[in-house]
Amino acid sequence: MAKKKFVEEITSMEEDFGRWYTDVVKKAGLIDYSSVRGCMILKPYGYAIWENLQRKLDKRFKKKGIQNVYMPMFIPESLLQKEKDHVEGFAPEVAWVTHGGQEKLAEKLCIRPTSETLFCELYAREVKSYRDLPKLYNQWCSVVRWEKTTRPFLRSLEFLWQEGHTVHATEEDAKRTTIDMLNIYADFSSEVLAIPMIKGQKTEKEKFAGARETYTIESLMHDGKALQSGTTHHFGDGFARAFDIQYLDENNEQVYAWQTSWGVSTRLVGAIIMVHGDNRGLVLPPEIAPVKAVIVPVAMHKEGVLEKAKEVKEMLGGSMEVLLDDTDKKPGWKFNEYEMMGVPLRIELGPKDMEKGQVILVRRDNGQKIIVPAAGISDRVQKVLRDIQKSLYEKALNHRNENTFSVAGFEELAEKIEARPGFFKAMWCKDMECEEKIREQTGATIRCVPFEQEKLSDKCLCCGKEAGAMVYLAKTY
Amino acid sequence: MAKKKFVEEITSMEEDFGRWYTDVVKKAGLIDYSSVRGCMILKPYGYAIWENLQRKLDKRFKKKGIQNVYMPMFIPESLLQKEKDHVEGFAPEVAWVTHGGQEKLAEKLCIRPTSETLFCELYAREVKSYRDLPKLYNQWCSVVRWEKTTRPFLRSLEFLWQEGHTVHATEEDAKRTTIDMLNIYADFSSEVLAIPMIKGQKTEKEKFAGARETYTIESLMHDGKALQSGTTHHFGDGFARAFDIQYLDENNEQVYAWQTSWGVSTRLVGAIIMVHGDNRGLVLPPEIAPVKAVIVPVAMHKEGVLEKAKEVKEMLGGSMEVLLDDTDKKPGWKFNEYEMMGVPLRIELGPKDMEKGQVILVRRDNGQKIIVPAAGISDRVQKVLRDIQKSLYEKALNHRNENTFSVAGFEELAEKIEARPGFFKAMWCKDMECEEKIREQTGATIRCVPFEQEKLSDKCLCCGKEAGAMVYLAKTY
Repeated sequence: MAKKKFVEEITSMEEDFGRWYTDVVKKAGLIDYSSVRGCMILKPYGYAIWENLQRKLDKRFKKKGIQNVYMPMFIPESLLQKEKDHVEGFAPEVAWVTHGGQEKLAEKLCIRPTSETLFCELYAREVKSYRDLPKLYNQWCSVVRWEKTTRPFLRSLEFLWQEGHTVHATEEDAKRTTIDMLNIYADFSSEVLAIPMIKGQKTEKEKFAGARETYTIESLMHDGKALQSGTTHHFGDGFARAFDIQYLDENNEQVYAWQTSWGVSTRLVGAIIMVHGDNRGLVLPPEIAPVKAVIVPVAMHKEGVLEKAKEVKEMLGGSMEVLLDDTDKKPGWKFNEYEMMGVPLRIELGPKDMEKGQVILVRRDNGQKIIVPAAGISDRVQKVLRDIQKSLYEKALNHRNENTFSVAGFEELAEKIEARPGFFKAMWCKDMECEEKIREQTGATIRCVPFEQEKLSDKCLCCGKEAGAMVYLAKTY
Repeated sequence: MAKKKFVEEITSMEEDFGRWYTDVVKKAGLIDYSSVRGCMILKPYGYAIWENLQRKLDKRFKKKGIQNVYMPMFIPESLLQKEKDHVEGFAPEVAWVTHGGQEKLAEKLCIRPTSETLFCELYAREVKSYRDLPKLYNQWCSVVRWEKTTRPFLRSLEFLWQEGHTVHATEEDAKRTTIDMLNIYADFSSEVLAIPMIKGQKTEKEKFAGARETYTIESLMHDGKALQSGTTHHFGDGFARAFDIQYLDENNEQVYAWQTSWGVSTRLVGAIIMVHGDNRGLVLPPEIAPVKAVIVPVAMHKEGVLEKAKEVKEMLGGSMEVLLDDTDKKPGWKFNEYEMMGVPLRIELGPKDMEKGQVILVRRDNGQKIIVPAAGISDRVQKVLRDIQKSLYEKALNHRNENTFSVAGFEELAEKIEARPGFFKAMWCKDMECEEKIREQTGATIRCVPFEQEKLSDKCLCCGKEAGAMVYLAKTY
């Protein structure tokens, strides 16, 4: 009864996926709104997910020799303008600081929408010889982009992210790094977030402002829409020429350096929600969950129950984040609450279980109840958590496979994507006109030219001319 | 010879402490400047110190049940104005965003100089019942204050910090938290940064804009100037009244809540430099050092030397951050470089040492050479690092004690502080006029009314009237 009432508080996914999403982010305690339009507050539980993500991804960066730095949040207008394509791409959506203290500034400053220009300015001073290369810098910070419509985690005026910026001696090194970082993102997503990613290249139209090539990881949400989940950019020597980043090579000649940049953001938290969540709320993969298991004592007033619960917490506490809820709320209320929060495992324990020397494990992902002996619970819980992690990945992969379709022609795409969104594989002539026509008339965009190519046919789905590549098409967030 | 030349590159402390400081922060690779006035770039080595500090302090926060969140960086003008004293204190030194994207904003936004107003807005929604209390939130972020003169780490337009904001059911709880957090800061400073702190209360004149009471930790730099190193504020119910943060208490009555805030910043990195540094450069306490020991092989081309060095690194690597410098630079150059960077311990190792089955440890803090058997080096290195940590603290404490003086009268203070800066203990009548006169005529300010009071005399050093408290006076950064 309590459960029913509680669950009614969130909109069901089938009824309205958008409302389901905003219900979950609010009710699971991830975010709140502030009085600035489009800026969200990351509340303790939401921020704890980001902290886990940050810690685990940062570890992978450090293993690659990447070093963290911190750059100023301000970019003078003249600096932003140094690279032509870059400023064209970003200037329309930045916030401008015009006054500092009591005075009007001589030159207005934008709040970084991304920090290529600042990193380039530093690199122009730091990089002098081939011995200085590569430089592999990253920063964790917030950036601001003045978006018209916003949505928690997916698109906000200010958001948290990391931006890596590297300089290399050769084009080959820069290109390799662009792909290496994409692989780090994809591996991290599948191993930690339990989200399978399509890896590929963005089209000319969709690439980053100032980049020569942009690569992307794309994931499929529960509602069949795609989410661009991370990008890496190969800059060639474009920024190096604009900012005069030259070095003395091994033959004693001054040459331009080669650069990359790459980033993921709190948007990944949105992906976790929309890939794994269900009508009871959030479902968190154990690898990213701030609380991996919650112990809910049943009939807590009975002798020995709370003591036993504490003992179980003690047995698990050394190896993971375990919560014991000993508040006076009803067990049923607690069950619902932690389901809403997506805690991977619930551990129930009452007088009857004590008699039998057992505890009950309940998996959040599939509701399965597992009765296990209280002794040696730690190994068992670890194993179940690994199983949950694996199941979530497989479930997400199955969902993606079941919602990935091949289409041969334009009409087929338009009809099918309207009836049931998903990833649509199709052949494309590489012409921007076809790309634009598809977007205008179907609402689908080319997500990427995937690394894993298939030859579905010889012809572009749109114009029927010779096809240049297979692409993934989808509607997107 | 090489050493001499290298050391000549930095100004000596005795010649010009200010230039010594800026030389060290630059040459040790901590920071660089950007093209925005007063904004610094935290380079990898400087940021790594901050990361260590953040990780270790955050651990202490979490042990107290404090939860991290992230608030927007923007504060609407109307929100900043809600608490009268607060806006008066901060409005003159904030940066204003007036344009977003292509449009002029209807209401200008300031970039947070501190986030009391945003936290209050959230708390007004979140706090409804005594069961919701206390709320113990913290955020790690950057803030902006439009300072006229700036200095790396000590005062910059933008700086990194943490700001804790708490809400409590009673005044007593809030007051206790204000003191608890001050103790956490002081303990962290002495145990991790090896910097002894004077704990005390700020005067009415020096307290935080909007606070009822402000507490501070004050440290003494090598040149005898004081540095305010962290503050905690008890707000009473002032903000709660301005923002209408009320809750239903146990008697079912609506009452106002009680609040605190507290923060430390990258300024602490400045304190580390100015307390421990010497004429060879930076000296880092092992607890905060990104690299705890550096292995420098001598006569690296000789057979087995590099292998042995790697073996030593392997033996130490499990337990700490150890660097092996196997570049082809000369050992003398390396010695100087890592001394400049303040690496606590150097491990030298050459063919002769190998014959004798030994390595040479050289302490950065006092230059002491310790010859130890290569076998079992890990325990020995750990012990030496503990000794260094302890020595640095004691040295800093001795320096402070040797530079702390008692003065009875105004002239005595003026003369002595001119001749030799330091902490000056004196009795004060608690009148703001005397406080102001002292500042104007001697350049010294009341750093705090310390918790550890002594009765030096009955009379105020300035006006000769009845003394109300002993204070610490100093010139300051």
